[in-house]
Amino acid sequence: MSEYRDATPARMRELIRKEQYTEPTSGVCSGYAQANLVILPRDLALDFMIFAQRNPKPCPVLDVTEAGNPEPKLMAPGADIRTDIPRYRVYRKGIMVDEPLNILDYWREDLVGFLLGCSFTFERALMDAGIPVRNIEENCNVPMYITRIQCTEGGVFRGPLVVSMRPVPGRLVPEAIRSTARYPAVHGAPVHVGDPEAIGIKDIDKPDFGDRVTINKGEIPVFWACGVTPQAVAMNVKPEIMITHSPGHMFITDISDRELQT
Amino acid sequence: MSEYRDATPARMRELIRKEQYTEPTSGVCSGYAQANLVILPRDLALDFMIFAQRNPKPCPVLDVTEAGNPEPKLMAPGADIRTDIPRYRVYRKGIMVDEPLNILDYWREDLVGFLLGCSFTFERALMDAGIPVRNIEENCNVPMYITRIQCTEGGVFRGPLVVSMRPVPGRLVPEAIRSTARYPAVHGAPVHVGDPEAIGIKDIDKPDFGDRVTINKGEIPVFWACGVTPQAVAMNVKPEIMITHSPGHMFITDISDRELQT
Repeated sequence: MSEYRDATPARMRELIRKEQYTEPTSGVCSGYAQANLVILPRDLALDFMIFAQRNPKPCPVLDVTEAGNPEPKLMAPGADIRTDIPRYRVYRKGIMVDEPLNILDYWREDLVGFLLGCSFTFERALMDAGIPVRNIEENCNVPMYITRIQCTEGGVFRGPLVVSMRPVPGRLVPEAIRSTARYPAVHGAPVHVGDPEAIGIKDIDKPDFGDRVTINKGEIPVFWACGVTPQAVAMNVKPEIMITHSPGHMFITDISDRELQT
Repeated sequence: MSEYRDATPARMRELIRKEQYTEPTSGVCSGYAQANLVILPRDLALDFMIFAQRNPKPCPVLDVTEAGNPEPKLMAPGADIRTDIPRYRVYRKGIMVDEPLNILDYWREDLVGFLLGCSFTFERALMDAGIPVRNIEENCNVPMYITRIQCTEGGVFRGPLVVSMRPVPGRLVPEAIRSTARYPAVHGAPVHVGDPEAIGIKDIDKPDFGDRVTINKGEIPVFWACGVTPQAVAMNVKPEIMITHSPGHMFITDISDRELQT
């Protein structure tokens, strides 16, 4: 259990800004939504936003910053996306060139930041509903797979849907679907239940990202749209510059999980 | 009752494209969602999309076209926003300069179209729930008011929220709220119930747009965010060119009202 479980988001972001906290954010500021970050130059931002609008399950947009302005006004007024994430990844033409604690040196007046919903919120909803979350039980990353489901194209952006998988006992599948459907801003209801091959996953024990988890007898694999999708799709375009959070090092918003419920 | 009540959206758009149908679209293609249109140059489109993302109640984005591409791929694949609306309005620096039946002569490679949810869908939901819709009963436009509620700024766009008002008998107010809350893509739940002055409306009998309607004894004014808001806000910026549908002459989508329900 993180010692920062009960910290306020503002206090936590301050510690992160001062680089006194540089770890993954799982378990931090319990009850508050965390977000994925994607930063792109303005000339790609409209296309990216159109792509997200057409693919709301993998790309639930929580907030967009204006070009050159690092404040996410909806999710955390007064915060700064350049400093308030514990660790970033900087990509040049699709190749990671740095993994810094802040991006002040990389910031430009034409950069636009996107905060996208993250599955931490719905994993809490699953646990509250008594549904086991295997990747949490096994203390590893959720397994993620590139599927053969194509996202709807948007501007220059196109590519396959990436999904995360959580095994759920058959009798709990309905509740798992209901619990997560209430959170459209964090991927919402699953996109597929059961047969991995039907969506182009050849070997459920070999995820494309993250870690393998145990699937017990009587459990069915349930697949949700995954926030890695927009990053993978953006990477395909090989933008001159793209900045994201480092995996697991999320932006902590001022919005409670509850507020994201419909 | 329109003789086009049972027409399919594709057939109706064909008639409109051929300019054989040039009238308002109320009552046409029953059960299918209709949409507001706003077209802006690409250099304003990102800011407009950010504004819409921050103000989803007045600006529920159903579809966005890529610059220069007139096809609304989500709402009506194969359709053309330049020809498939019965009547348009063309503005230059905020001044209306034309009200044509198509905009082929005005089209440019840098134009981006936004289809925004329209209240026709939720008015049907209200009627299905047994709630009177006064502007339909009195066969006039819904009354609309500029409030003192400010929208959240987005890029260069800012301005007050415009609301529509429908009087509802006190005992039916809960159901009116429940019915419309199910449709977040068409303005969703009301933004205010009761006292008009509380949101800056001085005289309920003098709407800023549309027509006055009767408020009977025992009825409470209920206010919904209105799709005129984004047009008014865009107009403030005096874009070099902006094109919208002409009031009441909407884009007919292939999406059923039901599909917009959460």
